[in-house]
Amino acid sequence: MSIRLKELVESLGGQLIGDADTRVSGIAPLSDASASQITFLSNPKFRPQAAQTQAAAIILSAADDAAIGADYRGARIVAANPYAYFALAAQFFAAKNAIPVAPGIHPAASVDPAAQVAATAYVGANAVVGAGATIGEHVNLGAGCVIGRGVSIGAGSLLHPNVTVYDACQIGQRTIIHSGVVIGADGFGFANDGGTWVKIPQTGRVLIGDDVEIGANTTIDRGALADTVIEEGVKLDNQIQIAHNCHIGAHTAIAACAGIAGSARIGKFCSIGGAAMIHGHITIVDHVHVSAGTLALRSISEPGQYTGFYPIAKHGEWEKSAALVRNLNTMREKIRALEKSIKQLIEQLPQQVTQKDNE
Amino acid sequence: MSIRLKELVESLGGQLIGDADTRVSGIAPLSDASASQITFLSNPKFRPQAAQTQAAAIILSAADDAAIGADYRGARIVAANPYAYFALAAQFFAAKNAIPVAPGIHPAASVDPAAQVAATAYVGANAVVGAGATIGEHVNLGAGCVIGRGVSIGAGSLLHPNVTVYDACQIGQRTIIHSGVVIGADGFGFANDGGTWVKIPQTGRVLIGDDVEIGANTTIDRGALADTVIEEGVKLDNQIQIAHNCHIGAHTAIAACAGIAGSARIGKFCSIGGAAMIHGHITIVDHVHVSAGTLALRSISEPGQYTGFYPIAKHGEWEKSAALVRNLNTMREKIRALEKSIKQLIEQLPQQVTQKDNE
Amino acid sequence: MSIRLKELVESLGGQLIGDADTRVSGIAPLSDASASQITFLSNPKFRPQAAQTQAAAIILSAADDAAIGADYRGARIVAANPYAYFALAAQFFAAKNAIPVAPGIHPAASVDPAAQVAATAYVGANAVVGAGATIGEHVNLGAGCVIGRGVSIGAGSLLHPNVTVYDACQIGQRTIIHSGVVIGADGFGFANDGGTWVKIPQTGRVLIGDDVEIGANTTIDRGALADTVIEEGVKLDNQIQIAHNCHIGAHTAIAACAGIAGSARIGKFCSIGGAAMIHGHITIVDHVHVSAGTLALRSISEPGQYTGFYPIAKHGEWEKSAALVRNLNTMREKIRALEKSIKQLIEQLPQQVTQKDNE
Repeated sequence: MSIRLKELVESLGGQLIGDADTRVSGIAPLSDASASQITFLSNPKFRPQAAQTQAAAIILSAADDAAIGADYRGARIVAANPYAYFALAAQFFAAKNAIPVAPGIHPAASVDPAAQVAATAYVGANAVVGAGATIGEHVNLGAGCVIGRGVSIGAGSLLHPNVTVYDACQIGQRTIIHSGVVIGADGFGFANDGGTWVKIPQTGRVLIGDDVEIGANTTIDRGALADTVIEEGVKLDNQIQIAHNCHIGAHTAIAACAGIAGSARIGKFCSIGGAAMIHGHITIVDHVHVSAGTLALRSISEPGQYTGFYPIAKHGEWEKSAALVRNLNTMREKIRALEKSIKQLIEQLPQQVTQKDNE
Repeated sequence: MSIRLKELVESLGGQLIGDADTRVSGIAPLSDASASQITFLSNPKFRPQAAQTQAAAIILSAADDAAIGADYRGARIVAANPYAYFALAAQFFAAKNAIPVAPGIHPAASVDPAAQVAATAYVGANAVVGAGATIGEHVNLGAGCVIGRGVSIGAGSLLHPNVTVYDACQIGQRTIIHSGVVIGADGFGFANDGGTWVKIPQTGRVLIGDDVEIGANTTIDRGALADTVIEEGVKLDNQIQIAHNCHIGAHTAIAACAGIAGSARIGKFCSIGGAAMIHGHITIVDHVHVSAGTLALRSISEPGQYTGFYPIAKHGEWEKSAALVRNLNTMREKIRALEKSIKQLIEQLPQQVTQKDNE
Repeated sequence: MSIRLKELVESLGGQLIGDADTRVSGIAPLSDASASQITFLSNPKFRPQAAQTQAAAIILSAADDAAIGADYRGARIVAANPYAYFALAAQFFAAKNAIPVAPGIHPAASVDPAAQVAATAYVGANAVVGAGATIGEHVNLGAGCVIGRGVSIGAGSLLHPNVTVYDACQIGQRTIIHSGVVIGADGFGFANDGGTWVKIPQTGRVLIGDDVEIGANTTIDRGALADTVIEEGVKLDNQIQIAHNCHIGAHTAIAACAGIAGSARIGKFCSIGGAAMIHGHITIVDHVHVSAGTLALRSISEPGQYTGFYPIAKHGEWEKSAALVRNLNTMREKIRALEKSIKQLIEQLPQQVTQKDNE
């Protein structure tokens, strides 16, 4: 399968310079691209590599085109955001290469008679769809998925195999959910009664917007009384835990292994690094970036990047610094004592000297 | 569905003040409760909100009732522990609202002829039950669960869909296991032989007590030679890892993303915060609370709260403090040098002055 | 079932001292072994316990045998690496005790007609095998596993129930994959376009070598353009996240809850501790050991052990030290001020004294 550059530009825009009939069979990085592929330059520091790439065509910015375009023998597509253009071009190729999914319900699926499955949807082998569930147009429900009662899944969404969605949760359109994800399990809610725990029924739902992606084995708990909400365009990596009653603002991206504790509220356009932990009941405003491995203990009211993890060192060096960290108070006391001693010396000595003078 | 307050009090106890025939349709927090709901006051600082709630009735302590009860227009239930009472009341409503599960084995389930399934149990679609397994009375086994050979599941337990239990593990009564949980996978046991790893077969089991709850995608490994033990009443959140041969004491609660390394022994009535990590082969006594994001490296022999995570800061500030943490030894040396200098000054200068005096 | 020691030695090697017809029914640690079991001594500090063990036979090193062998009443097997020998002996017993798996495809499995399943392989209930997949000889595919199109699984591999393998991934021979594992889900790749995210199709694969073991609920993402690679003999514990385009060198062991970010390259014979996090796009050479709870931010070019986590303390002590860590810069300024003051004092005071002298 190969396409002509003009097909790409007709679909995705951009300014094409060079032979519009140039055929490309796929997309690859500067260093790997063959003479039948298209590549992209998204960072000016790679201009030298761009000049040497074998690719038949290149996607680049106007600034980069002004700098190196004239030297480049192939065709160029000038785009405002070459990296986003690359992503869209890769989607274009992927769509061309995709094996079409024939709609229908696999004979080994178990769909409740009281569920509604759109005629264009696909339900895989051993998938289970509960009573009152609604599976939208062109939804692709992978093998082994279990969809609870009253769940709704919006048009064009893709659930990879072995996803579990508990009763009453709602999933938007064009949302992608990877294998092993569990949506709507009970939040961790218990009342302590003399040491033992009394379960608080979790009767809220999980509401997931459009164009969300959820990575493998991520878990999103249902709300206790109100709902857990994931707004549109949120991207969640693998192995993330989102606790009950969290609210994740639109277009926020969360990297793998992060944990968001109960009732935390994260704004729009934020990023949360891998294994970062967001404490419960705090609020983080829009455009906040929490670094990997960082625990956010209190609300963050100002945009910016926030970090907090212990620096790695050779083990012996860490042992020394960790011992000192535990004894910082002693260090501070020593500094105070020194300050006091010096103050006394300064006050006392010239005086003594002066006293001597006056004798 | 609504109930009269006297039904609640007959079932759960508490002192009812006001109209016992007041009907309530559900339970909600102070701020959200409508005139047809019951609410609760579990913290004296919310007394002002309680005075203004729209709820038809309120659960509160004797002290709070003495303080604000007279001002409240609705009915009151005075309870020793209003938050626990709320939990039980919510369970009461949830039970009334629950869709009953008809016992039986779904036609798409695969139950080994040598398994024993109680007549009152339910086995969902595509669930698989191995030879020699025992499924107790009123057990609810969700769709896609795979139950190994010789497993026993006690009466009244609920396994949500897509849970996997390996051979020979035992699960108590009234235990709730959420989707994606894996119980009894092999512990991480290998002998190193000149750089490569020789697998140590993991022949122990996982023994889980009564009234345990296990959150989505949590994993509990089987013991190497002895068993991994989770005592009664333990509550585990999502995405937790419990390694081989761990022993978790009764009524201990562990928050999401925590990891308990091999052969660790945690006491009763402990709490382990989110993403906390407990080192292998250590012992933690009863009533210890490990904060979120904390790594417990050594045994803890005294009850109390223990913490250890790097404080979050703006990225630039963190960079400075992290660089200083790595160089704390230098700081200490400087303090020592200062102490020495000052000591010398103090010893030396008055002497010089004195010497001058004597000249 | 019991075996004679000579069977063990014929199969595993080692020097047998004592009655070769001694029968043993299993293997147990020094303290637990009964008179019908074999035990092992892998650490000289346990020599006193070895002298008192009830075991019928003991595996030990030549050095330990020289020290205590003469005092031991049972048979001895002298091995170069007693702990590895123990592992192999335990495997020997486990193999004898194993319930044989009859080859064949369970009637409730869904195998695509265009898949190739070896005659000696087993495919469990509700397992799904896609078109073009190749399932090797003696492969054991657990119930509920979903194997994508074009996947290949090498001879002798064991996939426990509910494993998901996405299209086109390759798994070597004798590899063990535990329940809940997801292999080949999309990497977390998006281009930012004015705040929103454009998905970058993940078209690489996951390539897993021979003799790998992957713990429960671990996830390994497929590469973006190139492949994610797990070399032979790698051992991964539970709940690990390996991102797109990572390369894990042969015989490296990674403990539970660790996360390896995108395009990280870890050498051979490394170990990564529990909940450690390896940053994206960094390289770690062979024989590096990263401690538990440590975040590796930059490449590591020298073998050795590396650590970085905040030391645990009683909560109040931590609060003090954490406050000081945030203000280390102030502490440094104070030390500088002290150094300056002392320097001034030293320079100034003797001079004043001298000046007085000269007056």
